[in-house]
Amino acid sequence: MDTFSVADTIDQDPHQILGAAPSRSAAAAHASACAFETLKVRKEGAVLYADIAAPPMNLLGPALVRDLVSLIQQAEADSDLKVLVFRSADPDYFIPHVDVTQIQQYREEAAKLTGEASIALMFRHLSASHLVTIAQIEGRVRGAASEFVLACDMRFAARESAIFSQPEPALGQIPGGGAVQHLARLMGRGRALEVMLSAQDYDAELAERYGWINRALPANTLSDFVRSLAHRIARFPPSGLAVVKERVNAIALAPVEDFRRDSDLFGEGVRNPEAQRRFQAALKRGFQTRDAELDLARLLGDLPDR
Amino acid sequence: MDTFSVADTIDQDPHQILGAAPSRSAAAAHASACAFETLKVRKEGAVLYADIAAPPMNLLGPALVRDLVSLIQQAEADSDLKVLVFRSADPDYFIPHVDVTQIQQYREEAAKLTGEASIALMFRHLSASHLVTIAQIEGRVRGAASEFVLACDMRFAARESAIFSQPEPALGQIPGGGAVQHLARLMGRGRALEVMLSAQDYDAELAERYGWINRALPANTLSDFVRSLAHRIARFPPSGLAVVKERVNAIALAPVEDFRRDSDLFGEGVRNPEAQRRFQAALKRGFQTRDAELDLARLLGDLPDR
Amino acid sequence: MDTFSVADTIDQDPHQILGAAPSRSAAAAHASACAFETLKVRKEGAVLYADIAAPPMNLLGPALVRDLVSLIQQAEADSDLKVLVFRSADPDYFIPHVDVTQIQQYREEAAKLTGEASIALMFRHLSASHLVTIAQIEGRVRGAASEFVLACDMRFAARESAIFSQPEPALGQIPGGGAVQHLARLMGRGRALEVMLSAQDYDAELAERYGWINRALPANTLSDFVRSLAHRIARFPPSGLAVVKERVNAIALAPVEDFRRDSDLFGEGVRNPEAQRRFQAALKRGFQTRDAELDLARLLGDLPDR
Repeated sequence: MDTFSVADTIDQDPHQILGAAPSRSAAAAHASACAFETLKVRKEGAVLYADIAAPPMNLLGPALVRDLVSLIQQAEADSDLKVLVFRSADPDYFIPHVDVTQIQQYREEAAKLTGEASIALMFRHLSASHLVTIAQIEGRVRGAASEFVLACDMRFAARESAIFSQPEPALGQIPGGGAVQHLARLMGRGRALEVMLSAQDYDAELAERYGWINRALPANTLSDFVRSLAHRIARFPPSGLAVVKERVNAIALAPVEDFRRDSDLFGEGVRNPEAQRRFQAALKRGFQTRDAELDLARLLGDLPDR
Repeated sequence: MDTFSVADTIDQDPHQILGAAPSRSAAAAHASACAFETLKVRKEGAVLYADIAAPPMNLLGPALVRDLVSLIQQAEADSDLKVLVFRSADPDYFIPHVDVTQIQQYREEAAKLTGEASIALMFRHLSASHLVTIAQIEGRVRGAASEFVLACDMRFAARESAIFSQPEPALGQIPGGGAVQHLARLMGRGRALEVMLSAQDYDAELAERYGWINRALPANTLSDFVRSLAHRIARFPPSGLAVVKERVNAIALAPVEDFRRDSDLFGEGVRNPEAQRRFQAALKRGFQTRDAELDLARLLGDLPDR
Repeated sequence: MDTFSVADTIDQDPHQILGAAPSRSAAAAHASACAFETLKVRKEGAVLYADIAAPPMNLLGPALVRDLVSLIQQAEADSDLKVLVFRSADPDYFIPHVDVTQIQQYREEAAKLTGEASIALMFRHLSASHLVTIAQIEGRVRGAASEFVLACDMRFAARESAIFSQPEPALGQIPGGGAVQHLARLMGRGRALEVMLSAQDYDAELAERYGWINRALPANTLSDFVRSLAHRIARFPPSGLAVVKERVNAIALAPVEDFRRDSDLFGEGVRNPEAQRRFQAALKRGFQTRDAELDLARLLGDLPDR
C-alpha cells in the first residue's frame, strides 16, 4: 500500500495541495497521484481523498473505471484506512455520465473488480465495502455519476453548483448502474418515477428535499464540513463502523441480482435501434461535450421524438 | 380509440377549453367529453388530460368509477398515448372520498377493470400500467381520493388549496384503497401512523414535507408545470418509460394481495355496527355535503365517541 | 387497573399538575405516580401521560426499565386506555441513553415483559401494542432513548431543545435497541449511515428533515399540540386504530429476529476489550454525568483513538 502518500497535515487545503505543488506534502501527494491517470489521491491519516481529474469533462470511460477499480482494491487492502472521500477537480463536472461511445470498454475494466462486466456491480461492491465512503459533490452529477454517489455511504453537495439527473429515459434507456434500486428506496415511488421519467436537472436543494443526497451545503463550507466529518468517523473503532454498515446494508442495499438485472436491461437497451438513433441525435447536438452539457436537460428535451 | 379528440394545440389553457367552447378545438374537446358522464377529457399529442367533473362535489361513486374504468381501458388501448393527467374541474374538491351510501355499487363498477370488486385493485392496475400518470391536485383529496392520487406515478398540488386526509379511522375504518401500502412506504412508519390515526387535514406544504406528494407548487404555476412535464415525458421513447416503471414498481409498489387484504378489511369494517353508527352520525352532521366537508377534520373530531 | 388515577380534566396543564399538588386532581395524579419510582403518570380519559423523572439525568437503568415494563403491562390491560404519551420531567434530558454500568441489570428487567433480556424487544413490544404511543420530546434523546422514541408510533420534538444522537459507534458499538431497523427505513441508507457512523448531535429541525421525528414544533406549542392530537385519536373507535397499526407494522416494523440480532450484536460488542477501553475513557471524561453530556458529541469526538 505504498502507492498512497501518508501526509498527516489535515490543516491544509487539499484542493490547493492537489493543484500546483509548492510544498513538501504537496509533492508527496503529487507522487501518489501519479499512480492514477484520472485520480489525484491524498491520504490524511485514516482518510483518503480521491479527486476525479479526467479532462476535458470527467466522463466515466475506461480510464476512470480502471483507476476506480485500482483505488478501491488498494484502499480495501490498506488496513490503516477507514474513510474514502470522492471529490472532483473540475468545478462544473463531478462526472457527467458514462462515455456512451465506449460502453463495452469501461464495462470490461469494471469486471476486474467483481468478475462481471458491469459498473452497477462495481458500485455495489463499494457500497458493501468495510470502508466508509463520502461523496463531496460540486458540479454536474448525471447518469452513472449519480449512481456512483448513490453507492457511496453519504452524499453532501454544494448548494450553488451541484446538479443531479438520471437522463437515461430521454434516450430510451433504464438507468443501469443502480439508480432505480437506490432512488426508489431513498425517495419513494412517486419522486423516483418523476426524477427518472422526466430526465430533468435537479439542483442540490431539491435533491436534498427528495432524499437524493444527505444535505446541500454552501459551497464555501462544504470542504471543511466533509473533512471534519471524515476525520471524526476515522477516529472511531473500525469494528463498530463495519457492523453498522453491514446491518444497514442488510435492510437498505438491494441484492446483487437486482443491480445485475438493471445492468443487463441497460445493456439490452443500448442495442435497440431507437436508442441508437437517439444517441446519435444527441451526439450531433453536443452530447458528451463540455459546453453543450451545461444544459443537458434542454438538449434532451429538444431531441426530435422520431 | 376515436373517443378522444386529437387537438395538438398545447399553447391553450385546458381549463379554459374545458369550460365554455369558443373555438374549434374546444368543440372537439367537448365532443370527446361527451363519452363520459363525470370526466372531461382532452388529448394533446401523446398526453391525455382527464378533468373530474361530477357535481355537486366529485364524490367517488358508481358513475365516476365507471368512467374511470372506461378511460383507463381506452387509454391503455391507444398506442399513441403515453401520459395521462388527472385534474379536477372543481377548485374546492379534487375528489372528497367515496360515496359511503353506494359502496357495493361503485365496487361492482371497479370489477369491470380487474374482475374484483375493489377500487384498491383498480388503483393498483393504474399504478402498474405502461402509461405514465400525473395527478394535478387542487382542492380536497381525502380518503379514496388520496389513494387515487397515490396510485398515480406523480402528484403535484396547489400550495394554496390542496388538502389531504385519510379520515377512515375516525369512522372506525382502515383506508381500504391502498393508502396503508403507499403511505407506509412513502413517509415511513411514524408519519404514516400519524396521518391515518389522526384523520387530520394536511395542507400541501406539509404533505410535501411528509412525502405524500412530489411537490407543492403555487396554484398559478401548477398547470403550466404539469403540462410542461407531461409533454416532456411524452417526447421520450415508450420502451424506456415502461421499463423504468416496471423496475420501480418491483421495489416500491406493494403486491396485489396486500391491496386486496386492505380492501377486504375495509369491506368487513363497514359492516361493523359501531362503524355504521358513526357513518350515520357523520351523515347527520353534513358528511357528503359540499359545505360541511370544507372542514371535515373538525366534523370528524366532534363526532360523539359513543 | 386502579394504579392510574382517572382525572378527566383535560383543561389543566399536566406539567403544572405533575409538579406541586395544589388541586384535587393533582393529588390523584400524585397518588398514581407513587406506583412508580421513575415515572409520574396521569390519566385523562383514554389518554395516559407518563413523565420520565429519574434524577439526576433520566439514565435508562434497571429502575426506569422496571417501571416502563410495569407501565406497559398495566396500560395494555386497561381496556379504557387508547393513547400513551411519553414525556420527560427534565427539560435538558428526555433520556440520555442506557446506564452502561448496569447493562446486565436493565436487560433482566426488560425480560419481564418479553421473556428475553433485551430492551430492543421491549421497545418492539411497544411498537406492536394495540395502544397508540406518542413521544413528546424535550432535551437530549441519545442512544437507547432515540430507540425508545423510534419505537413509539409518533414523535414530536421541541425545536429549541431536542437533541438526537446514536453515539454507539463512537464507542465501537452498534445501536442495539432498534435504531438500525428504524432509521434505515425512515431516512434511507445514506442518512442512516451518516447519523450512526458520525455519532453526532442532530437538532430537532434537522431530525425532522431526515425523518427521525414526525415534526419539530416550537417548545411553547408542543404540549398543547400533543395533547390535542392524543385526545383526538382517543375519540376514535379502537378497532380502526388497531387495524391501521397492524397493517402499517406489517410493512414498516422490522421482524422480531432483526431486533434480536442487533441486540445480540450490541451484547457481544460491549464485551470487546477495545469497547471496554473506550467506555472507561469516556466515563473518565464525564460520560454519564449531567454536565459533561450536555455536549456529548464533542466528548466522543475527543476520545483518544487508541
